[in-house]
Amino acid sequence: MAIITLTTDFGEKDHFVGAVKGAIYSEMEDAKIVDISHYVSPFHLHEAAYIIQNAYKSFPLGSIHIIGVDSELNPENKHIAVYMDGHYFVCADNGIISMLTSEMRPEKIVEINIHDRIISNFPVLDVFVKVAGHIARGGTLDVIGKNITEIKELTGLRPVISNQDSVIIGNVIYIDNYGNVISNISRKLFKEVGRGRPFIINARTAKFDTVYERYSDAINFNNTADKREEDGKRLALWNSSEFLELAIYKSNPTSVGGAASLFGLEFRDTVTVNFNTEL
Amino acid sequence: MAIITLTTDFGEKDHFVGAVKGAIYSEMEDAKIVDISHYVSPFHLHEAAYIIQNAYKSFPLGSIHIIGVDSELNPENKHIAVYMDGHYFVCADNGIISMLTSEMRPEKIVEINIHDRIISNFPVLDVFVKVAGHIARGGTLDVIGKNITEIKELTGLRPVISNQDSVIIGNVIYIDNYGNVISNISRKLFKEVGRGRPFIINARTAKFDTVYERYSDAINFNNTADKREEDGKRLALWNSSEFLELAIYKSNPTSVGGAASLFGLEFRDTVTVNFNTEL
Amino acid sequence: MAIITLTTDFGEKDHFVGAVKGAIYSEMEDAKIVDISHYVSPFHLHEAAYIIQNAYKSFPLGSIHIIGVDSELNPENKHIAVYMDGHYFVCADNGIISMLTSEMRPEKIVEINIHDRIISNFPVLDVFVKVAGHIARGGTLDVIGKNITEIKELTGLRPVISNQDSVIIGNVIYIDNYGNVISNISRKLFKEVGRGRPFIINARTAKFDTVYERYSDAINFNNTADKREEDGKRLALWNSSEFLELAIYKSNPTSVGGAASLFGLEFRDTVTVNFNTEL
Repeated sequence: MAIITLTTDFGEKDHFVGAVKGAIYSEMEDAKIVDISHYVSPFHLHEAAYIIQNAYKSFPLGSIHIIGVDSELNPENKHIAVYMDGHYFVCADNGIISMLTSEMRPEKIVEINIHDRIISNFPVLDVFVKVAGHIARGGTLDVIGKNITEIKELTGLRPVISNQDSVIIGNVIYIDNYGNVISNISRKLFKEVGRGRPFIINARTAKFDTVYERYSDAINFNNTADKREEDGKRLALWNSSEFLELAIYKSNPTSVGGAASLFGLEFRDTVTVNFNTEL
Repeated sequence: MAIITLTTDFGEKDHFVGAVKGAIYSEMEDAKIVDISHYVSPFHLHEAAYIIQNAYKSFPLGSIHIIGVDSELNPENKHIAVYMDGHYFVCADNGIISMLTSEMRPEKIVEINIHDRIISNFPVLDVFVKVAGHIARGGTLDVIGKNITEIKELTGLRPVISNQDSVIIGNVIYIDNYGNVISNISRKLFKEVGRGRPFIINARTAKFDTVYERYSDAINFNNTADKREEDGKRLALWNSSEFLELAIYKSNPTSVGGAASLFGLEFRDTVTVNFNTEL
Repeated sequence: MAIITLTTDFGEKDHFVGAVKGAIYSEMEDAKIVDISHYVSPFHLHEAAYIIQNAYKSFPLGSIHIIGVDSELNPENKHIAVYMDGHYFVCADNGIISMLTSEMRPEKIVEINIHDRIISNFPVLDVFVKVAGHIARGGTLDVIGKNITEIKELTGLRPVISNQDSVIIGNVIYIDNYGNVISNISRKLFKEVGRGRPFIINARTAKFDTVYERYSDAINFNNTADKREEDGKRLALWNSSEFLELAIYKSNPTSVGGAASLFGLEFRDTVTVNFNTEL
């Protein structure tokens, strides 16, 4: 039986998530349900896009990913099912999966059209679960929708290259649980543009000329503990999703503060990489 | 194997939920455990009642719902197991399931009496899991308790009708993850009292003369985007649980604010529907 | 198939937990995954130690407990797998499981050495899941690491006995979801030192001369409700983990306040028990 994952902005206090799981088990007795996140900020498409992009790949092929963010059906918000990279995605066509499609083409997209039977203000429960059940039982996407070729784009997810390939202008796309700041600058883009040149990364007042592979690489363990400056150490690294991350070593946003608060960085703020280091 | 759901005020940081799940798996190797909510405000019976009422119906018949809110055994707080509407509920007799019993009669209620073997300050782990295991294995309720016919009532869950059937005086019973305000006025009651007459809904400074079926119905998609007044649009609708909800279109309580903060409404505040619209 | 539990400081918003679960299912199709907690404060080893200690015992023997707190591999933070008390623990050697080892000896400890194949800044996903899979399939610990006999100690978890066995000086080790304050003074130690003598417990301004078995035991249910002083009633009790807990009856830290805020107690603050009650 296929795995069904849930990524929503429902929170975990209300009955919504429980009700959806009940409906899934009612539809598929032996479903395996996995919560990816229910704490997407309400209607925050970029957060949802970042989370699902970085979670889905570790699931087995054939997994079905329900995304319940801004999913009410209206003339500008159709419901779609997408097959891409060996996985199924069931969501609204509001741009969330355009972050995934920046690197690959969906093999199949259908606009779900089972709504003549279901009108609802809780489409995750009433529509997406039915669609997931259909897919899990081996049904084809053609039965539940009509083929389409284009889906909505989410703006602001992709960095800009300027100054004759010497500057990448990116943005903050996510702040994680440790307060670390994740940009939309991927290691791949950085390599292509930088071609091994030295660089300076700027984000408001923070500056970096090194990007580490791991947090601990910023610490010199040959020094005695009192000389290491571990606490509050600022660093840039390639995070586990291969994006440029600005971090504080062992930060705790609720006590000493995390990178976002200490660097004064928020969602959409600018992060630049300048490969013209003689300037 | 039956599904066992959990609705508690334990939060998800402490070891409580994990310990209970461990105990369930120790008792029933192939249990299916589903979290409904662990974020009921501590000892908040009304919240627990609202959440379980709206979640349980989507689960398969025969599911067992453990409710761990205010469940310590004392002379005024007995433990009960209830069979109603095809589902089992294991909880304390503190009024939580009286919200369910306003619309139907339990088929069977027993006062759990297996405590001579178990004295504990963690009854969900020590008592409710045992009871759930007994039920899941097909045991009857008679073995674990003695029949009773009455359970405690929770006050304030039901609206009052006044002015010769022309006014419904209800209350706020829940604030959801989006900050939307849910009243105890059901669509059924509204129809019975209103008999199709026009109406004004009042809740502090908020006023509405329409109740929508879905959030998007409040938006005119024929207008161009800049003329739609989507952001911050106030609306009343029948929520997915068929209660009257006062909402802000696409609200985010942590940024722009939700209906509760914008309307100044809290738990127990008054929501009235006046069908004397000539006044 | 063995149960795999997760205790981390990842939070539940980011993709981390979902990604780890996907990896577990990719490794072991029929795994049973149980979340113990993802809300350990970032890098807070004592919290993690308290939570895992109180949760693991209720799981079936043979369960595998992954602890993802401060787990990045570095010269001072090795990865270990431990077999103790019939359970497996996979974590970093940062002291977290020293709370468990204060009462028993691990049967086997290995320092994980599969890292030549895996260098990563997400070791829970890349290393711990692999180790758990190996154990779940019945593999021995010797295959994935080399035997060691010592693990790191976490300081401050154990109370001190002074004044010729008449005083226990303990500390706050945890604040729970209700704001209740848990000390590191166990019932066992209390009994051994106290030998039945009367006592005074002091913690900042709070004083107690009784330790109850259950919260409700502090309330006299023979009194009428208005004379019981239930609300805000202060009490000391042996909590379900057999530690001395200072509590407020039916407290709600987000409204009326919990014991921690009302007593002004924080992590590491002193809790003393004085058995010289004539002084």
